[in-house]
Amino acid sequence: MLMSLSTEYARVRHATRDLVAGLGPEDCMVQAMPDVSPAKWHLAHTTWFFETFVLERELAGYASPSPAYRELFNSYYDAVGPKHPRPERGHLSRPTLSEVLAYREHVDAGIQKLLARGGASSELMELGLQHEQQHQELLLMDVKYNFSKNPLVPRFQPQPLEPCGASEPLRFQRFDGGLVQAGASGSEFSFDNERPRHRRFLEPFELGTRLVTNAEMLAFIAAGGYQNPALWLSEAWAWVREHAVAAPEYWRRDAEGAFHEFTAHGEVPLDPNAPVCHVSGYEAAAFALWAGARLPTEFEWELAARAAAEPSSLLRAGRLHPRGTSGAGVRQLFGDLWQWTRSGYEPYPGFVPEAGPVGEYNGKFMCGQWVLRGSSVATPNGHARVSYRNFFYPHQRWPFTGIRLARDPR
Amino acid sequence: MLMSLSTEYARVRHATRDLVAGLGPEDCMVQAMPDVSPAKWHLAHTTWFFETFVLERELAGYASPSPAYRELFNSYYDAVGPKHPRPERGHLSRPTLSEVLAYREHVDAGIQKLLARGGASSELMELGLQHEQQHQELLLMDVKYNFSKNPLVPRFQPQPLEPCGASEPLRFQRFDGGLVQAGASGSEFSFDNERPRHRRFLEPFELGTRLVTNAEMLAFIAAGGYQNPALWLSEAWAWVREHAVAAPEYWRRDAEGAFHEFTAHGEVPLDPNAPVCHVSGYEAAAFALWAGARLPTEFEWELAARAAAEPSSLLRAGRLHPRGTSGAGVRQLFGDLWQWTRSGYEPYPGFVPEAGPVGEYNGKFMCGQWVLRGSSVATPNGHARVSYRNFFYPHQRWPFTGIRLARDPR
Amino acid sequence: MLMSLSTEYARVRHATRDLVAGLGPEDCMVQAMPDVSPAKWHLAHTTWFFETFVLERELAGYASPSPAYRELFNSYYDAVGPKHPRPERGHLSRPTLSEVLAYREHVDAGIQKLLARGGASSELMELGLQHEQQHQELLLMDVKYNFSKNPLVPRFQPQPLEPCGASEPLRFQRFDGGLVQAGASGSEFSFDNERPRHRRFLEPFELGTRLVTNAEMLAFIAAGGYQNPALWLSEAWAWVREHAVAAPEYWRRDAEGAFHEFTAHGEVPLDPNAPVCHVSGYEAAAFALWAGARLPTEFEWELAARAAAEPSSLLRAGRLHPRGTSGAGVRQLFGDLWQWTRSGYEPYPGFVPEAGPVGEYNGKFMCGQWVLRGSSVATPNGHARVSYRNFFYPHQRWPFTGIRLARDPR
Amino acid sequence: MLMSLSTEYARVRHATRDLVAGLGPEDCMVQAMPDVSPAKWHLAHTTWFFETFVLERELAGYASPSPAYRELFNSYYDAVGPKHPRPERGHLSRPTLSEVLAYREHVDAGIQKLLARGGASSELMELGLQHEQQHQELLLMDVKYNFSKNPLVPRFQPQPLEPCGASEPLRFQRFDGGLVQAGASGSEFSFDNERPRHRRFLEPFELGTRLVTNAEMLAFIAAGGYQNPALWLSEAWAWVREHAVAAPEYWRRDAEGAFHEFTAHGEVPLDPNAPVCHVSGYEAAAFALWAGARLPTEFEWELAARAAAEPSSLLRAGRLHPRGTSGAGVRQLFGDLWQWTRSGYEPYPGFVPEAGPVGEYNGKFMCGQWVLRGSSVATPNGHARVSYRNFFYPHQRWPFTGIRLARDPR
Repeated sequence: MLMSLSTEYARVRHATRDLVAGLGPEDCMVQAMPDVSPAKWHLAHTTWFFETFVLERELAGYASPSPAYRELFNSYYDAVGPKHPRPERGHLSRPTLSEVLAYREHVDAGIQKLLARGGASSELMELGLQHEQQHQELLLMDVKYNFSKNPLVPRFQPQPLEPCGASEPLRFQRFDGGLVQAGASGSEFSFDNERPRHRRFLEPFELGTRLVTNAEMLAFIAAGGYQNPALWLSEAWAWVREHAVAAPEYWRRDAEGAFHEFTAHGEVPLDPNAPVCHVSGYEAAAFALWAGARLPTEFEWELAARAAAEPSSLLRAGRLHPRGTSGAGVRQLFGDLWQWTRSGYEPYPGFVPEAGPVGEYNGKFMCGQWVLRGSSVATPNGHARVSYRNFFYPHQRWPFTGIRLARDPR
Repeated sequence: MLMSLSTEYARVRHATRDLVAGLGPEDCMVQAMPDVSPAKWHLAHTTWFFETFVLERELAGYASPSPAYRELFNSYYDAVGPKHPRPERGHLSRPTLSEVLAYREHVDAGIQKLLARGGASSELMELGLQHEQQHQELLLMDVKYNFSKNPLVPRFQPQPLEPCGASEPLRFQRFDGGLVQAGASGSEFSFDNERPRHRRFLEPFELGTRLVTNAEMLAFIAAGGYQNPALWLSEAWAWVREHAVAAPEYWRRDAEGAFHEFTAHGEVPLDPNAPVCHVSGYEAAAFALWAGARLPTEFEWELAARAAAEPSSLLRAGRLHPRGTSGAGVRQLFGDLWQWTRSGYEPYPGFVPEAGPVGEYNGKFMCGQWVLRGSSVATPNGHARVSYRNFFYPHQRWPFTGIRLARDPR
Repeated sequence: MLMSLSTEYARVRHATRDLVAGLGPEDCMVQAMPDVSPAKWHLAHTTWFFETFVLERELAGYASPSPAYRELFNSYYDAVGPKHPRPERGHLSRPTLSEVLAYREHVDAGIQKLLARGGASSELMELGLQHEQQHQELLLMDVKYNFSKNPLVPRFQPQPLEPCGASEPLRFQRFDGGLVQAGASGSEFSFDNERPRHRRFLEPFELGTRLVTNAEMLAFIAAGGYQNPALWLSEAWAWVREHAVAAPEYWRRDAEGAFHEFTAHGEVPLDPNAPVCHVSGYEAAAFALWAGARLPTEFEWELAARAAAEPSSLLRAGRLHPRGTSGAGVRQLFGDLWQWTRSGYEPYPGFVPEAGPVGEYNGKFMCGQWVLRGSSVATPNGHARVSYRNFFYPHQRWPFTGIRLARDPR
Repeated sequence: MLMSLSTEYARVRHATRDLVAGLGPEDCMVQAMPDVSPAKWHLAHTTWFFETFVLERELAGYASPSPAYRELFNSYYDAVGPKHPRPERGHLSRPTLSEVLAYREHVDAGIQKLLARGGASSELMELGLQHEQQHQELLLMDVKYNFSKNPLVPRFQPQPLEPCGASEPLRFQRFDGGLVQAGASGSEFSFDNERPRHRRFLEPFELGTRLVTNAEMLAFIAAGGYQNPALWLSEAWAWVREHAVAAPEYWRRDAEGAFHEFTAHGEVPLDPNAPVCHVSGYEAAAFALWAGARLPTEFEWELAARAAAEPSSLLRAGRLHPRGTSGAGVRQLFGDLWQWTRSGYEPYPGFVPEAGPVGEYNGKFMCGQWVLRGSSVATPNGHARVSYRNFFYPHQRWPFTGIRLARDPR
């Protein structure tokens, strides 16, 4: 058991390191808006997590490379102490990338020593690895955003990372609803925000069998969707006007007016059959209204995902759903794009945060954000779950987000 | 039937007029922050509602006193056309208060003429009257806020409007939950956001039998509640620090450190037994966590309110609950203070906005706000309902808001 | 002498009162941007000036109608104590206009009593009256701005206040410069910022014989002046773009594209021969550069004004220059529009602020502002002087400002 | 002559390169506030200057390494075209530092080829080298600021760069003033803003013989100078309160309350005898008022500097004044700290900007800034002049600025 945790730890930690293999020290330092963090910061903060919550408590005599790291790489844990201001993470040339990689090795050695002794809380170790995987996706999102602001249009992947086309016609599959179970069962790892498993009553509903495509978003644009206040929530309309939003993030028109898309491999012509990517929750809701539909609730989504496959088989597959295949007619649940739901991110009945400082992990953000379900091309294999609750503010669109439609039965 | 609508119309419209009886033209023009509107604007906008949605459609030959009013007094109806900017409502000395009162009489005459002819959509008339009553409460909230910013501490009521003390000990009453009905049945008036009636599954819960008092909030303050980030949502803590929040709105310390409260009748010493008033949702949630409890969901609240009394008896009472009395042990549901719930303001399953431009009334605000339930000392008699959904952003605290605790059974 | 001061006091104070004769209590409360003050505030603050700096020091037993006025109507005197925040002057419905007019009478009675006793520092009384006259012009500027933001286009004068046309061709008059005297001689009243009289060396220069007209500004617009960064100071260009400036303040295009101008008597068609009014210093400098000229320094302007007429004759005339007449070829020096100079508002060599709290009157604003010279249609008769230094930030354009060109001899 | 220009070009360009010798690629990318630029940007922009204004016009067939550089490294020349937004210079990881250094070599080769052919406007070459030297000082200022925001307190010089102590007592030397010459004569290089030489009349004045010291600033702090509004300009007092300014930039108190100073070599105890460094113009003016003095005008300063030494001897010395020595009693004019004057940065009479796009170099900034005179420890040898006009906004204090007092004769 300890052997396997040691191996898993090494595997996940190396995966993070691999993500920056093609990036130089300067690339790893950019923070082009306060919402994103430099890649270097992700490398350091995930390390800080193991140092602060595992090594400093459990490995006697452990010493950090620098006492300043406690504050520099604290993201938002008030119980741990002060934090370097988030918008200023990109101002730190020191520690250098080399020093941060050495920090990673230092902590990795400490963790392996602790594991060899049979120490380390397996719950905190597991949480630390899940946390690391979340930051693997954040790192990709953030590098993409940072590179998108550079007029030289740099690439950071040997080919586009973005999901490919899905040409089948959009259909709606009916679900009967009723009194259903929602949330994590506790038999496998879950974050506290997925618990406890509890009952929800759902009215009958229909769910789109695939994600909305770029071609469909082009039709929305052509129909004046971004100019029609009747389609938008009040806050959303203010956002559209303040930022002059007229297309998804990363779409750019060339001199002839044709759309191109900035990807992990630079600019490419827009693929009409690919699922539309990098839309805000506002845009998702407006598109749905225009299309005569609505966004699903997170519980509708979860019910459909449970219907699509048995959890045990999912676990074996590593990634929950190989892209493009799913049972029961509803496709693209996992592995393409996170799907906006119309559910505010709120505590489940009976929610209890994790004990200790890691209790700040999820609960304190349950305000003003929307739940997204599924997973994306940037999500590490094996990280997704049917009960997983991702969350962002409805104006944010630098994550790999897409649109799943729902509607009430006619 | 038409006769009774005519009478009801006159009654409600006069009630609005009565609210400004003690105010001068200058008092009716203040807008001390963008969230509030001048009293004069409320007088005009409620009139505009009948003019725009009833008279202009149904009374042939109707002419407005000024074509500019269409834009000046449009609150947020994009389908009607442009709107005078909300933060600049307080810059309008013209039309004067006298002219606005004449505008009211002009529209009232038009409505009565239309009713006499047997015209006027009774649905829109009813909506207009409910709308007028909402603005009666907003007017009181706004005048209170505006006056609170004047160092001369003016009064606008012959005595404090705020709720009085409730000395009984705080107990929790258990509810079994289960599959319950929520939302408006349709047998009486309701806003579109209360519909459709639908089923919700609730786990067992307990609800505080009375509202939280000033004395209890003083204990929270004495315990350092406003200095302890562990009690606050992440956004809430940022709000506390940015605005240096250290007590409910309108609380002021005298030279000796004793708290006084600004009321509709000026400053009075804080009554420890009165329910704490003018707290934000953030403060309500932080208090609840400190007290070992939580806020109820809107459906828990509604279940308790349905259990407390039969709707038919409520209607007869004019105000739903005479203050201080309620069945089933849970008191102060209506008539004291609106009660924050931990439910985001979202559409009910199957929600369909009203047809036409009044469809903007509620639905487009279903984003980022929290639901409040009950009613307050400022709510007109007969306006409250068990299914009523009031909504504000969780940082707002100039409404007459209070704290109802809930908790999971031990 | 005391008799004459008493009479002059009554005359000036009545003149202020007369300015609001056509305004209602609501009109006197508007503050449509932080730079302007409500007319009611001007009425009260000028009164506060006499109360604070004269009565409270010299009239034993004097009692203010309200101790709160000391803070409410303090503009910017840190030595006097705290100040009500400037952007919130428009939120004060109380004291009402009636109460403020009673406050004026209360203080007027006190001043007359003091004068009758032979008391009152004549320097402070004179300063108070000059101060009152400055606020008479500010009141007109501010009411115009406030009314301009009202879609009902209200009028506050029986006819436009703005200067009329000047049809003569623009010529330049040469001045030889040399070592000249600048500043106030001390023989008549002056503000501290006009003193001491001192020597300046001026190179030869030429001054435009009249102000720039609306027709000339139309030519600048037609030539793309507002779109050409080469004409603008760096800060000015940022201001043009941020605020989308494309014409002087108060110019409005009708449906056919023709310009109209908002005046004290509502909107009128633009008079091409009238001097262009309500331009910022930025616009004045850009226009001058486009016209192959520059703005004068304040000392060039003063030299020309001294050359134009003897001060003694000016004083007798009440207003320095009857509009449209001046000796020596340079016209429109006084009584039409304040004229932007390219001189920063800085202390004269040997400048010493007034003693006591009134030392804050001028000196502390000598930073970032530009000097304007002359006077305008809104300046009270007898208030202007050759040495008078008005000052505003170069982006401000709600004062009655115009453009006088200068250039170096060819 | 061409040979010597070639040598001088190589010398100045290498000096810039040497400044970043101790910095890594990440260090060269930081932009910790919009006012500063990354070191890498300075390296590229100075190169862009030669490319844009010399090579692209004069070297047939010249090709830039990247067409994107034209926009990326344009600072503020509207005539050249669009500019990458200034606050986003720190977001550019590409081109990398290596690529920028290669860009420098590419342009250097082009320039040397052009010079070998006898081409290149010597005026533009000279301007380019003066420009490069200005950026050498900016680079040091900016790196210092960027490093000051890093909690690891990095060092970028082998020892502090800041000026050392000056222990002599502060005296004032009298100057008679009169009609004097000001500005550049044209016999040596000057920027357009120093021309034309012209006459100014100065009243008699006295000038402090040395700069104000840290000990004297400590006395100002101890006397409550930062808490006393009577000492500050109105804008300055607003700045003090908004930013809670209580000491010069880079001063930090340790746990015992003793002041330390962040320098180019990290934190060191404050040297009481050293000239106070990194003060804003606001602080300089407030200190002067507290000390019973004032700031000099730029013309007073220039007169004293001319009196101190013959320009011809200055030129031979390379640096104008070896630190700590000067004739005529007034010391520390050059080589320690730039000295705030109370002169707004305005055009001299007869000012004509350079022809062509480099005309934007100086003239368009003549608004809102104050002139500083002298030079600092960070100014390259040979770059300073008696007529040199440096300029910053009075709130800025990251340049190497100090305080020279002046006063009117008693």
